[in-house]
Amino acid sequence: MSIVVQKFGGTSVASAAHIENVARKILKTIANGDQVVVVVSAMGDQTDRLDSLAKEIDFYEPASRRELDVLLSTGEQVTIAALAMTLMKLGCPAKSFTGRQAGIQTDASHTRARIINIDTTRLRASLASGKVPVVAGFQGVDDGGNITTFGRGGSDTTAVALAAVLQARECQIFTDVSGVHTTDPRVVDTARLLEKVTFEEMLELASLGSRVLHSRAVEFASKYEVPLRVLSSFEEGPGTLITSEEDSDMEQVIIAGIAFTREQAKLTVLGVSDVPGVAWKILGPVSEANIEVDMIVQNVAADNTTDFTFTVGRDNYQEAMDILKKVANDIGAREVTGDDKIAKLSMVGVGMRSHAGVASRMFEVLAEKAINIQMISTSEIKISVVIAEEYLELAARALHTAFDLGEKGS
Amino acid sequence: MSIVVQKFGGTSVASAAHIENVARKILKTIANGDQVVVVVSAMGDQTDRLDSLAKEIDFYEPASRRELDVLLSTGEQVTIAALAMTLMKLGCPAKSFTGRQAGIQTDASHTRARIINIDTTRLRASLASGKVPVVAGFQGVDDGGNITTFGRGGSDTTAVALAAVLQARECQIFTDVSGVHTTDPRVVDTARLLEKVTFEEMLELASLGSRVLHSRAVEFASKYEVPLRVLSSFEEGPGTLITSEEDSDMEQVIIAGIAFTREQAKLTVLGVSDVPGVAWKILGPVSEANIEVDMIVQNVAADNTTDFTFTVGRDNYQEAMDILKKVANDIGAREVTGDDKIAKLSMVGVGMRSHAGVASRMFEVLAEKAINIQMISTSEIKISVVIAEEYLELAARALHTAFDLGEKGS
Repeated sequence: MSIVVQKFGGTSVASAAHIENVARKILKTIANGDQVVVVVSAMGDQTDRLDSLAKEIDFYEPASRRELDVLLSTGEQVTIAALAMTLMKLGCPAKSFTGRQAGIQTDASHTRARIINIDTTRLRASLASGKVPVVAGFQGVDDGGNITTFGRGGSDTTAVALAAVLQARECQIFTDVSGVHTTDPRVVDTARLLEKVTFEEMLELASLGSRVLHSRAVEFASKYEVPLRVLSSFEEGPGTLITSEEDSDMEQVIIAGIAFTREQAKLTVLGVSDVPGVAWKILGPVSEANIEVDMIVQNVAADNTTDFTFTVGRDNYQEAMDILKKVANDIGAREVTGDDKIAKLSMVGVGMRSHAGVASRMFEVLAEKAINIQMISTSEIKISVVIAEEYLELAARALHTAFDLGEKGS
Repeated sequence: MSIVVQKFGGTSVASAAHIENVARKILKTIANGDQVVVVVSAMGDQTDRLDSLAKEIDFYEPASRRELDVLLSTGEQVTIAALAMTLMKLGCPAKSFTGRQAGIQTDASHTRARIINIDTTRLRASLASGKVPVVAGFQGVDDGGNITTFGRGGSDTTAVALAAVLQARECQIFTDVSGVHTTDPRVVDTARLLEKVTFEEMLELASLGSRVLHSRAVEFASKYEVPLRVLSSFEEGPGTLITSEEDSDMEQVIIAGIAFTREQAKLTVLGVSDVPGVAWKILGPVSEANIEVDMIVQNVAADNTTDFTFTVGRDNYQEAMDILKKVANDIGAREVTGDDKIAKLSMVGVGMRSHAGVASRMFEVLAEKAINIQMISTSEIKISVVIAEEYLELAARALHTAFDLGEKGS
């Protein structure tokens, strides 16, 4: 008998009725002959509600982060009790486990703790006695017995970590989408559900706006080689299996999917002296203002000056611009320009490594549609371009068709 | 420096603003030179809301009581975090403690656990480092590390138990009333706030409808000789000190207060054979139906038959009557009568022990007002009478005046 870890997110457990639906899914897995360990998030928007109590108190010193963890961890604790009771009502012996009771030991970094060790003694005893363990995601305890939490998406991390230490056959992440698609089905109606995708591709897709899974959980699964499956808790279906490249039969596939991020903005400092330290002088003040910088491109120039461009979220555009104008003055740059109507589109696929010509084909398709490429950035398994946001849907659809990613026969 | 345990109930911590008010009360106590250990209940009606989630799941087997405790204990956990954060915001170092973290070990009786031991190591360390410990009331852990709760009113028990083991100078229970009164101020406008009352009197008053304090907490305080003070978290004032008789200077006071319970009903079985076991035959089926019986009176009769009367809550009147009619038939009783328009009124005071004549004076006062006494029951420090409910306010006011319980000069 092999172990399957099943994780259900907030929307999947939003009410008593939702929880009963989840319990029936668990029963079905058990009926198929697997042992199940369940991990759950807080019900619906409970974490947000607890967060707003903290916001009302409005005190965020390092010392209070310990208390924030005490507060937030109650959300998952409510769900484990409710689900364990529901399973019992349906005739399935079950037992709830807080992070501590599940033996999840972390470091002492409150609100962003990392798992150090998991003592599975109690969980294994529960499985051995035929009680389904229902574990609170997102939380553990440090070695002082203080409650810690893992940050948003932390329940996925709990599920993957438990799957790793319990040597589970699979870690199943139930969400409100049916799996990972070749691109956003709301934009490209021929978007296809991927049967399999590699960890690396999933990481690129996750960081590029396909927010199906938390990146940290994917990294963790990749590191410990835990087969991860994303599937819907509201409809039937196999979902998408995320696994390592060796396990996959996707060698022939070049592109796994097309991801995109809207509401981006770019800023360019023109005529910067091309001397060491200049990038730091430009980006230092920006990151000090807690503005997250995404793509960074620097062109080598002939006249010992260079143009330096980077992208930020649109919300941060004006603030970044104000900072840059001051910086430009200090470093003697010629001018600062910007555009806050851009979007980023990326093609992701491990097959790119061994297939030349993906980039040129991509640029050709965009040129055919008269879409101007403003920035380009590449990694081993990804090509990202920045384009005007108004062309985003057109670009996504054209590339999806050109690379034959759609439903067969469509 | 002596320790004071301060407990704040649900209405006192119902919102972030309420919690800030509580924090300021704590700061004031600290400014007066005491060390404070705080115990809190769940915010407002949070326990009721958690309870209704359990009701929605609707599964109450013994096994699910463990899960009910996991669920309910989250209410207090939210409050400790919120209050600790608020204290820190106001510049006062603080640290929250769940029942487990506070070292509260209980038996394994879920939803009605009893405290077995308290390991104060962590609480004392927190006090020594100048951090106010904020402890979750109502909860502990059994020796298997399972979360247990104490039942309604359990936070009072936590406070008293902590005061006992920490040898606190006083255990202060903050509520939404200003203390214990000679009688209900809503009925008798000259009702006076009692400065002091004995544990025994408080127990009688608590069980008689003056629901200021949970009886279990009073018993606990009495057993471990913890001076208990009831006071308001919304207004200033000394409240009422509940202490043992030796400590009090109340020897000259005969009556501490007048308590009453409305919405009672009485049932009488007439013409019962006066043989052993008949009381059990009558009350056995009633208590099997989970109907709580309060006063029981049996008159000795001349003709070898007896009349047997008892009171129940009005809600249970019809059910009890149906049961009795069947029983009366079985035991050959003559008739069953009843009245569901009655109330119980009690005079309580340790001074009664040494002062004869309280009962006769009480009966005299009621006779003067033409109030018929339907049942009488006495204990060492209490006389209870059952009267028609419509006379309740009149009786309370007349007795309050006759025994000179009111405000001086009123």
